[in-house]
Amino acid sequence: LPDATIVDVTHDIGAFAVREAELCLRAYAFAFAQKTVHLVIVDPGVGTRRRPIAVQAADRFFVGPDNGVLGVALATPGAQVVELTRSEFFRPTVSATFHGRDIFAPVAAALAAGRTLDEVGTPFDAALPSRLPVAEVHADVIRGEVLAADKFGNLATNIAMRDLGQPLVLAGTSVDAVAEARAGWQVSVLGEALPWHATYGEAAPGELFALAGSDGFLELALCEGSASARVGAAVGLAVECTRRSR
Amino acid sequence: LPDATIVDVTHDIGAFAVREAELCLRAYAFAFAQKTVHLVIVDPGVGTRRRPIAVQAADRFFVGPDNGVLGVALATPGAQVVELTRSEFFRPTVSATFHGRDIFAPVAAALAAGRTLDEVGTPFDAALPSRLPVAEVHADVIRGEVLAADKFGNLATNIAMRDLGQPLVLAGTSVDAVAEARAGWQVSVLGEALPWHATYGEAAPGELFALAGSDGFLELALCEGSASARVGAAVGLAVECTRRSR
Amino acid sequence: LPDATIVDVTHDIGAFAVREAELCLRAYAFAFAQKTVHLVIVDPGVGTRRRPIAVQAADRFFVGPDNGVLGVALATPGAQVVELTRSEFFRPTVSATFHGRDIFAPVAAALAAGRTLDEVGTPFDAALPSRLPVAEVHADVIRGEVLAADKFGNLATNIAMRDLGQPLVLAGTSVDAVAEARAGWQVSVLGEALPWHATYGEAAPGELFALAGSDGFLELALCEGSASARVGAAVGLAVECTRRSR
Repeated sequence: LPDATIVDVTHDIGAFAVREAELCLRAYAFAFAQKTVHLVIVDPGVGTRRRPIAVQAADRFFVGPDNGVLGVALATPGAQVVELTRSEFFRPTVSATFHGRDIFAPVAAALAAGRTLDEVGTPFDAALPSRLPVAEVHADVIRGEVLAADKFGNLATNIAMRDLGQPLVLAGTSVDAVAEARAGWQVSVLGEALPWHATYGEAAPGELFALAGSDGFLELALCEGSASARVGAAVGLAVECTRRSR
Repeated sequence: LPDATIVDVTHDIGAFAVREAELCLRAYAFAFAQKTVHLVIVDPGVGTRRRPIAVQAADRFFVGPDNGVLGVALATPGAQVVELTRSEFFRPTVSATFHGRDIFAPVAAALAAGRTLDEVGTPFDAALPSRLPVAEVHADVIRGEVLAADKFGNLATNIAMRDLGQPLVLAGTSVDAVAEARAGWQVSVLGEALPWHATYGEAAPGELFALAGSDGFLELALCEGSASARVGAAVGLAVECTRRSR
Repeated sequence: LPDATIVDVTHDIGAFAVREAELCLRAYAFAFAQKTVHLVIVDPGVGTRRRPIAVQAADRFFVGPDNGVLGVALATPGAQVVELTRSEFFRPTVSATFHGRDIFAPVAAALAAGRTLDEVGTPFDAALPSRLPVAEVHADVIRGEVLAADKFGNLATNIAMRDLGQPLVLAGTSVDAVAEARAGWQVSVLGEALPWHATYGEAAPGELFALAGSDGFLELALCEGSASARVGAAVGLAVECTRRSR
């Protein structure tokens, strides 16, 4: 499909980091135009029993392995799923170790060229796993964890800012993006209570702090440094928010 | 703007490296076609008082923060500048930490779609800073410094080859690209006098040397190795050129 | 050529790694459409005597230095080669250190715009080197070596799976991709006999093993780890396959 428009969203997801890829897809999938085909491959199990699938959700297409990387598409109401069973859309020879090239990309091209989901696979309605753990939300405490580190070492968590009472900021207004969360909740990591800041620039160099991540979830950062390096191996690290007494 | 042609010049500028980004922009901005919109974001101060701006210079557009990263555009004669104040061109919700996505990219898309500078912001004529320090040029000595290291560890300086008496090489001619500089000037770093070479391949493996960088400035390199690693933390390192006695 | 479609195949080839680039080109060059212009630059000798060339092979064009990086194009039956001698297609000023920008990319653009090989250079029929060493194939032993490591640390070798009796797998079939090789040949590295596995997922975590690489050559991998790190400096490492006695 030489006239396809290819946008390289990222080749910087960590090796084997299915969860990081799912998080990235959650942040960007629906910002692309309808009919976009998202080719998403983090595939440690390439060639094993995990199935190759395609998903249609909110009028976008998603192609990849069924290892959780497409969790955000599968969780979309009305999502349709097929297993990629139609080898006429594959590369004529299929390696055991590079289904990105041999199965997923050719099927993505077929969908981009106008093929329907039913033409490229077989309906498939198993409940497929998301790898993203869900935070525990109680009245006075929210227990979540770090999902991924970005290249700056900022740590994304699974604690939604809306569960901390923090509304989104509308364009053109200038409200403190963490005012409500700051007033209501104390964030702790590894037994350390963290300050809140609205921006990276507001913190002191070297200070570990909590802020509202750009996708609406609590984030941990270190001013002009790496929060990831500071707290050690970060993915899965417990993060606790405790409601302040009044 | 799904039909935009996107060229990913680089995602390899170092974190917080405003100066490195400005240098990259200086090297490439005007090699792109007129009407190109350059989206340039290294933004440690995202969400703080630094202003979001757009610049029109030499019939190209530049969008980014006013922290010096757009210095080359601002320094172009006839440059016009606006502060991005028209939130109807922003993402409907604006995070405090990702103005690249929420402000700069949407405004870049608006300009690429034909909006004018005046439509997306408010005229703004403050003198905005460049982060690139200027070399001191005297008759017999030029004192400059290292501005950035590239991924090979080559070190770009702010000493212009023309100040060393070295003309550019025209296509199709085969002159020694450092003959004049070699005859006239001794380059020193950390008290060490460096040899000149015209090309990377001319030096001996492991030799630290001076050459004419491809953007017309003095460069320091190490044959098949990293000059940056050899001289330690390199950005800001003093570089001195002394006129040879005759 | 602002309307060129640019596909960034990779900017992740190692510094000075001419052989790794040639291997990458071998894997992908002919998967692109006819008339594609491949711009391939790993050029430690930039500015020295190595010649800038363009090759036309199987109706694709290849532009780069004659240091072996274009070996796969040169080895294609019917390949035509020119030395890039027509400076009117170069950038008006040519640096000594960045021929990618000053010579190769402008000539690639000229070819993409419809210029012929003869228009951009002078016929040139020297036998140009490939850097890829060829395995020694005997009846009962095949001696090859590691050609390159990918970003996962998987090691590509120059031992063809077909020389190990292993046919390619056709799309839609489900045969064991290493059954024939496993039955017939023992693979050894650094005196260690390796098990065969058909996929990365089939091996035990930490296990070093042999498999069929996706480009039809023997590959060495480490399950959820780096084979490259495990065997030390990997490129050039001897790999031996010995026919099993029956």
